Amino acid sequence: MAEYIAPIGRLIEEFRRLPGVGKKTAVRYAFAMLNLSQEEAAGFADAVIGAKRDVFTCPECCGLSSAAEKCDICANESRDPSVICVVESAKDVMVMEKVRGYKGKYHVLGGVLSPIDNVTVDDLNIAELIRRVESGEVREVIVATNPTPSGDATAAYLARILEPYGTEVSRLAYGIPVGGDIEYADEVTLMRAMEGRKYFNV
Amino acid sequence: MAEYIAPIGRLIEEFRRLPGVGKKTAVRYAFAMLNLSQEEAAGFADAVIGAKRDVFTCPECCGLSSAAEKCDICANESRDPSVICVVESAKDVMVMEKVRGYKGKYHVLGGVLSPIDNVTVDDLNIAELIRRVESGEVREVIVATNPTPSGDATAAYLARILEPYGTEVSRLAYGIPVGGDIEYADEVTLMRAMEGRKYFNV
Repeated sequence: MAEYIAPIGRLIEEFRRLPGVGKKTAVRYAFAMLNLSQEEAAGFADAVIGAKRDVFTCPECCGLSSAAEKCDICANESRDPSVICVVESAKDVMVMEKVRGYKGKYHVLGGVLSPIDNVTVDDLNIAELIRRVESGEVREVIVATNPTPSGDATAAYLARILEPYGTEVSRLAYGIPVGGDIEYADEVTLMRAMEGRKYFNV
Repeated sequence: MAEYIAPIGRLIEEFRRLPGVGKKTAVRYAFAMLNLSQEEAAGFADAVIGAKRDVFTCPECCGLSSAAEKCDICANESRDPSVICVVESAKDVMVMEKVRGYKGKYHVLGGVLSPIDNVTVDDLNIAELIRRVESGEVREVIVATNPTPSGDATAAYLARILEPYGTEVSRLAYGIPVGGDIEYADEVTLMRAMEGRKYFNV
């Protein structure tokens, strides 16, 4: 006899697709679904399908758009087109948008260069970025890839290939997080914090 | 401007229904869904709806059944009908089924008595349990509620109301988990382990 009756077993398997979800968590989620009303479950299912159906890729920044045209940020005339923040994934755009002060635009790479994972320049939206920079109106490209070896390598690569266009390329500062404690910072973060130290202008 | 485009925001809200899922996890799940193919997303949605549509309550044990009749365990002639293991939720049936040696049947209470949460005898499947015991073929009821105050209270209540029927009522043993270390056991578990100590027959 199977451990779970078929419809539940199937739902458990589906939940296991989610990142970081193992067997026990999937079982917990599946049984939580059973406690929803028929309408609520239908709403959940519809949201899953809707997210696939109604989400498009922005032709400009390669991020997510709610229509088959420019996303809200790219279409927003009040955003500064001379600054582009390059991020790894579409999710990171939303993360960066929490920084209320940033009024530039974005470019989603769709990953980072990683020879080990067979991710090369052609797998990323780098040609699209060059096309935007070539237009001439981009003054600065801020590379906001994660502080991982691949993220660092990708930032260095972008700095090199964008150099001929006379665009400034910068990288986010890495160091001790605000509110963090030096005691708990790892060595690499501490090293980065030392390298990026700021001098007081006395 | 909303933090996320509408279809994604909606999916994030749906994922937040799941137990233990906060904003960050829901965002992670929603973006994982976007990486599925259209067919995979449809399969996921269908599994959610299917679990609601194709799962029924067993009229005998109040557990889950894949048809609008007795569940596989209740319908299984080789299972001993004279022993009933009482569990809190349908999920616990699957947990107990891992104990390969158990060949009795089950009864799902659908919760535990908890005055604080307004859960009274009428909210649980206790009348159904009494009906099964009344039939006379039940020799023993093993109460496998969790070792919480409510679980204990429910077990004590069941022992009292089943007493007139001459059915033995027992409770799972609680103590140090196998492979566990006494050093890390909490006081209540240690107390239970002391209370439930076994004498060597020398």
